Amino acid sequence: MTDFTSTALRVDQKGLWVLDQTLLPQQEVWLLSPSTESMVQIIRELKVRGAPLIGVAASLQLAHLAEQGASSDELEKALFVLREARPTAVNLMNAMDRCLVALKKKGPQGLIIEAESICREDVELCASMAAWGAQLIEDGDQVLTHCNTGGLATAGLGTALGAVIHAARDGKKVHVFVDETRPLLQGGRLTAWELEKNSIPFTLICDSMAAALMQQGKVDRVLVGADRIARNGDFANKVGTYSLAVLCKFHSVPFYVVAPQTTVDVNCAYGRDIPVEERSAYEVRGVRGAFGQVEWSLPHADVWNPAFDVTPESLVTAWVLDRGIFTREDVRKGALL
Amino acid sequence: MTDFTSTALRVDQKGLWVLDQTLLPQQEVWLLSPSTESMVQIIRELKVRGAPLIGVAASLQLAHLAEQGASSDELEKALFVLREARPTAVNLMNAMDRCLVALKKKGPQGLIIEAESICREDVELCASMAAWGAQLIEDGDQVLTHCNTGGLATAGLGTALGAVIHAARDGKKVHVFVDETRPLLQGGRLTAWELEKNSIPFTLICDSMAAALMQQGKVDRVLVGADRIARNGDFANKVGTYSLAVLCKFHSVPFYVVAPQTTVDVNCAYGRDIPVEERSAYEVRGVRGAFGQVEWSLPHADVWNPAFDVTPESLVTAWVLDRGIFTREDVRKGALL
Repeated sequence: MTDFTSTALRVDQKGLWVLDQTLLPQQEVWLLSPSTESMVQIIRELKVRGAPLIGVAASLQLAHLAEQGASSDELEKALFVLREARPTAVNLMNAMDRCLVALKKKGPQGLIIEAESICREDVELCASMAAWGAQLIEDGDQVLTHCNTGGLATAGLGTALGAVIHAARDGKKVHVFVDETRPLLQGGRLTAWELEKNSIPFTLICDSMAAALMQQGKVDRVLVGADRIARNGDFANKVGTYSLAVLCKFHSVPFYVVAPQTTVDVNCAYGRDIPVEERSAYEVRGVRGAFGQVEWSLPHADVWNPAFDVTPESLVTAWVLDRGIFTREDVRKGALL
Repeated sequence: MTDFTSTALRVDQKGLWVLDQTLLPQQEVWLLSPSTESMVQIIRELKVRGAPLIGVAASLQLAHLAEQGASSDELEKALFVLREARPTAVNLMNAMDRCLVALKKKGPQGLIIEAESICREDVELCASMAAWGAQLIEDGDQVLTHCNTGGLATAGLGTALGAVIHAARDGKKVHVFVDETRPLLQGGRLTAWELEKNSIPFTLICDSMAAALMQQGKVDRVLVGADRIARNGDFANKVGTYSLAVLCKFHSVPFYVVAPQTTVDVNCAYGRDIPVEERSAYEVRGVRGAFGQVEWSLPHADVWNPAFDVTPESLVTAWVLDRGIFTREDVRKGALL
């Protein structure tokens, strides 16, 4: 495999490394992932997260195993295990399906080439999306974003946050409102960290404060990513996204979803067909990370903890794909396919 | 002073005690408050919180000082210091104004009698509100509530949560969705604790999940309290309330505000006239309490941390006061005055 370095993934002579995102921003620790099992655990524990990045990491893990001499049978078995590591994002499934085709057609060497293509393509997709998305951001804008959709979520510049970073690099003055994104705080921990690395000014808020910000006219637009987009334009993304979409509708704030074509699930007609992963109760009863661990609620409190929610296409102003910007009218005519 | 005991306040021969709400639910610690200074600190640090309870606690503190032999001049001085302890809730100001009139008219003994009346009235107001509010809750309802509005927020049964408790005591089957209410987690810590004490089943969610719950048709109605109600019906309440109001509008879920008449500020025409307290950045960068203390974001991250937001009357289905239930039409005709 060719050496590769991005914000959160690295391939070198020692193997495949991932930046442990559960430890950010307090610690920058890189983990070597030698096996299918280690990668599945890394994905399940959200040490690697972000729909595109998960797909790339799983692909590179297979390529690494192929290089270590795994047989086609072993690789196929590993592929199906990785494919199930998380249920909501379609990128992982798409990437694994591509690897499977390559493996079947051209064996382990073909799989290595395909995995590297998936990674390279993700970098290119990010560059395209960021360039398109940046066109929607005006000089002086105050942008609100949710969760983390930057270099920590992809192999490249990112999706929604990539667009913001691109706009800032173009010289536009942008201020970002970062909602913390409970329960796992990807906004407060990861997006804040990335914006600081990119010298983009930001203000951190709690998720419940976005409405008041919009009421005061302080949000010019909202950009979010997507974990899976249905054929009709409905999409699943980190829980809280749908809440923002409703708030944008009410306040007439443009609401954009930025995601690569690989996020579109052509087998999924509507948002309601997207399975939504429910996670452990302890995530809501408290917080844990490199910063420490506390639990503030009752230890046996019943909890509902969906990792994602589904936003209907009717609330989306435009879909920013790597191929361009599509309005609701475009999407209703089948532009996502 | 007559002995008195409620969920979070106690008067006995030793003096005035308050339950330290920052330590709940992990520890139940009662603090003796001997002075104006101790009560101001207790209020500022949210050890006592809840608009009605703050007004009662400050009044009883003055009564205690009067019993200890403080002069009218000293009491008046103390009164103005207490009046400024927090800026948003009007109950504190109303209570202090009543105490001032009593003090001027009838001296320290008159103030003691007035303070005890304020406390007793709050208990009675709660009982009335709870009875009215309970009428709006149907058997089998799934109710969502925000922050804490129960016996920890008042001298009695509570406001919004009081209505839920009343309905449950009437034999109605009620399930409560408790949003955690970042940043200070009054939902996750306090409302969960109160519901458990009252044997009412509940499910804890993050603030950002309420929209998805409503989308799935799981919320029959939302009940919230108020820190200050303007003459036109706009009201300030814990940040996140306005967000819920917008979500209710979008999903056609009834949205009720439950508050005593003492919360209505007749000097305030519109919600935009209500001053909103902004609190420290550290509250958003992490959490701290008896459960421990962690900070997950960057220690210098810029933060916006309004303690309250303002909900316009147009989003309210009905106002539940101690005097009855008032529709938007009633309120537009001046029913709050």
